[in-house]
Amino acid sequence: MSGTGRSQVQRLPERGSQDPAVIKEVLDAAFVAHVGFHAQSQTFVIPMIYGREDDILYLHGATSSRLLGTLTERTDACVTVTIIDGLVLARSAFHHSVNYRSVVAFGTARALRGAATKVRAMNVISEHLLAGRWRDVRGPTRSEVDATSVIEFTITEASAKIRTGPPVDADEDYGRPTWAGVLPFRLQADAPMPDPRLAADIAIPEYLVSSKNAR
Amino acid sequence: MSGTGRSQVQRLPERGSQDPAVIKEVLDAAFVAHVGFHAQSQTFVIPMIYGREDDILYLHGATSSRLLGTLTERTDACVTVTIIDGLVLARSAFHHSVNYRSVVAFGTARALRGAATKVRAMNVISEHLLAGRWRDVRGPTRSEVDATSVIEFTITEASAKIRTGPPVDADEDYGRPTWAGVLPFRLQADAPMPDPRLAADIAIPEYLVSSKNAR
Repeated sequence: MSGTGRSQVQRLPERGSQDPAVIKEVLDAAFVAHVGFHAQSQTFVIPMIYGREDDILYLHGATSSRLLGTLTERTDACVTVTIIDGLVLARSAFHHSVNYRSVVAFGTARALRGAATKVRAMNVISEHLLAGRWRDVRGPTRSEVDATSVIEFTITEASAKIRTGPPVDADEDYGRPTWAGVLPFRLQADAPMPDPRLAADIAIPEYLVSSKNAR
Repeated sequence: MSGTGRSQVQRLPERGSQDPAVIKEVLDAAFVAHVGFHAQSQTFVIPMIYGREDDILYLHGATSSRLLGTLTERTDACVTVTIIDGLVLARSAFHHSVNYRSVVAFGTARALRGAATKVRAMNVISEHLLAGRWRDVRGPTRSEVDATSVIEFTITEASAKIRTGPPVDADEDYGRPTWAGVLPFRLQADAPMPDPRLAADIAIPEYLVSSKNAR
């Protein structure tokens, strides 16, 4: 997401990667996926939560009839995740950029069928969002599973793109009296807010206060 | 992004809105857009930064030849922004959800032409990301403008979707000894990190430390 023309890409501290380890790392660090697909001569991009297992993303999202109807059968889709790490503030407008990690994955989506398969996928998604939560809650009943749509997205091709580090200015601009650097961003988890109906004697579980869940 | 079937949507504290004021509020609060379009029998979803002006989003993103080539002429696109506000932790797996604000906007994208038009749009994007920054930096030269792609996306149809508040559990689950509530998330700006080449006498500007920029 650099603020530059195509010819500038090579000299920026930005890199693309087809390395599966890098791709998986970004997929495991992000939180929400944007799922794109084409239906009825229209492109849709829908935010969905997800979990990863090998080259499969299990997706779970806003259950609109449009989405359900389209992704039930095998459908080509593009799933993109993006983590914003900071604003890169250069001395010129042109060299401003964003530090980020993103993955663009192409593949095939289909709705999962079969209660056991769906529950397993829901477990993967739950562990990705908040490890430890699943075993602490009441599991889904059969009718709840039937009322839940889970999409299996099989990645066939993916690439990561990552930018890190300080701005890269034009040589002649380094003498300018403009503050330059990075304004770092992160998705911060704040103190858990108890349900108003929570019984007073129920403590906040350990998995909720561990630093791993503050992204 | 609730964890429920279609039939459950009505009873959740989740609402959709076609209200332009709500849509603009979400668009102005978010940071990155996911831009979907269809080309060569393939759907692409690309993360881009943006700024809003009336019903127009100015988009600025990773300058790949694929993107530039596709969005130069008038192209149908879907632009989705999503802000994650928290994990909604219910007493049952089924009623887990996410507090979020999102907008899905349909419209037409085209590349801007003309230096003055492009610079104006770049200013709008810059102000959206970090109000006050633009006037503090060296503006773009003509060749820098020529090397920059800016997309104008005109919204023709959009809807917002927002979920807030605590979990909504099944009546029979409220007696369970499971912690329930919301784990709030926000995109937090940390202390600015000076460029290693920054002169020691250049102070951090006021617009960088104002709370407005911590989202």
